[in-house]
Amino acid sequence: MSAYPPGCAFVDGTFCAIADAKISVLDWGFLRSDATYDVVHVWQGRFFRLDAHLDRFLASAEKIHLTVPHARDEIAAILAELVDRAGFDEAYVEMIITRGVSPTFSRDPRDAINRFIAFAIPFGWILRPEERQEGLAVAVSEIARIPPDSVDPTVKNYHWLDLVMGMYDAYGQGARTCVLSDGAGNVTEGPGFNIFVVKDGKVATPERGVLQGITRQAAMLLLGEMDVSVAERAVMLEELHGADEVFATSTAGGVMPVTRISAGTVADGKPGPVTRALIERYWDAHTRGDGWSIAVADIPRVGAALPKPGDA
Amino acid sequence: MSAYPPGCAFVDGTFCAIADAKISVLDWGFLRSDATYDVVHVWQGRFFRLDAHLDRFLASAEKIHLTVPHARDEIAAILAELVDRAGFDEAYVEMIITRGVSPTFSRDPRDAINRFIAFAIPFGWILRPEERQEGLAVAVSEIARIPPDSVDPTVKNYHWLDLVMGMYDAYGQGARTCVLSDGAGNVTEGPGFNIFVVKDGKVATPERGVLQGITRQAAMLLLGEMDVSVAERAVMLEELHGADEVFATSTAGGVMPVTRISAGTVADGKPGPVTRALIERYWDAHTRGDGWSIAVADIPRVGAALPKPGDA
Repeated sequence: MSAYPPGCAFVDGTFCAIADAKISVLDWGFLRSDATYDVVHVWQGRFFRLDAHLDRFLASAEKIHLTVPHARDEIAAILAELVDRAGFDEAYVEMIITRGVSPTFSRDPRDAINRFIAFAIPFGWILRPEERQEGLAVAVSEIARIPPDSVDPTVKNYHWLDLVMGMYDAYGQGARTCVLSDGAGNVTEGPGFNIFVVKDGKVATPERGVLQGITRQAAMLLLGEMDVSVAERAVMLEELHGADEVFATSTAGGVMPVTRISAGTVADGKPGPVTRALIERYWDAHTRGDGWSIAVADIPRVGAALPKPGDA
Repeated sequence: MSAYPPGCAFVDGTFCAIADAKISVLDWGFLRSDATYDVVHVWQGRFFRLDAHLDRFLASAEKIHLTVPHARDEIAAILAELVDRAGFDEAYVEMIITRGVSPTFSRDPRDAINRFIAFAIPFGWILRPEERQEGLAVAVSEIARIPPDSVDPTVKNYHWLDLVMGMYDAYGQGARTCVLSDGAGNVTEGPGFNIFVVKDGKVATPERGVLQGITRQAAMLLLGEMDVSVAERAVMLEELHGADEVFATSTAGGVMPVTRISAGTVADGKPGPVTRALIERYWDAHTRGDGWSIAVADIPRVGAALPKPGDA
């Protein structure tokens, strides 16, 4: 009925082809979106910021009372094994922990058996190839991002209906994707990306009600190395329109110029110098060591990640 | 790895056992909680308020740009067939439409092939048997329900992390389940149920930021028949504590007395007269015709619901 991208998955303790990677329709991860996840990418055979992604994944799971059935080094080994089996040099590698199913279908989440899933698929871009040069057209939606009083955005989560409806709003405005406000005139984030504004050489990114993105964090570290000042603070929607440059950050594309906001262009409508310099530095960081990147081949293969007899 | 309740499912056009009912881990219904659903129950061999559930399901799907691949009478036939195959006299019957998967794993929801799923499992209760007499202990959580500015609550959705975290709050307070506020001092709803308060013979239920529950609607109709006044309006958290009676409504249990709110009892801590009379009338309505109930056997079996060669 559906076709799937190429790739490899790890579900219920077993490696399988992506087309066979399925979860029960009764899993609370589906029926209540009661799950957390993380996505790390592989570029030229190296994981980027793997430790930061594992830290966030394990912290997210703990915050919502989910128990990952694998130790940290086992998770790393499973992810590496997935990339090897899929045969990708560039990959998008997702790890998920769901509440799972209660054998009695009890409604009490404490009765459920938590489920770990991971998969590797080809590296995915938010940007189309031409947009990597020209920049992305983003529309500001009237929909407010789910607030931190309701769902803790530092727990990476699948509560995306606001973002998906924002995408439909954006399509109606002729844009490719959206940015949501907090309902009080401030910028939050878009579907899978954080937002930065550059004005008079200073950079700012929203502080509250947003995912603490790993690419966001990487961008802040790299801007620091470039001696560019970066502030995490409330960013008003008007600042998007008045900015010298706007860029987005995501594992699915890295640092991405944003050159149109709703009906207007950002400055002259071309990617600016801070964005361009940061993009170059960002991709250069993919071959650095020191916690920035590690070769897939250098991840120790331990425990659960060892191939089992009969594995695909 | 997991055990499943008994039951029967319909996935990708085919009937199967509940243990085999699975969706791709790449389905946006899972990865973005980009889905809507409805749950109708069967009691003594009869669907209750089936038309109202089908109306809401089809309206919800349309609101979030999902296309159900079956006509309304086909959906009814599939649900009836599921109950027959499962052999249940009492059942909890869920229908789901998800965004599905894009064959290219494009991030654009318009590229995805929407997926219809349905399943029948044994009737599930929010209440334990003893709680049907004694009433439910509910804690008010500090977490705010996801607001209607972010996600339209009239589209029945799986955005439940706020409710699940509220349940953990409730367990910490010795309660069985929770009620969330709107962050501004008003009551919203609990995990899968609407809330009503009774004071001086008058009944009120929150108007905004809540699911337009079918059992909530049934309760309002039945209270009208009992000449009891019911208002849909803002209900302050203090009203819960000062109420003569509190009750909850859900497909998973019907009308349910709430006799404890956080540390205190509701009035004398026993189910009150309005609640008790409404419970009786609610269950009596399960044998009424006129849109209230219909025998599973009386649902015409059409189109997709006809058993196919090789079906389980």
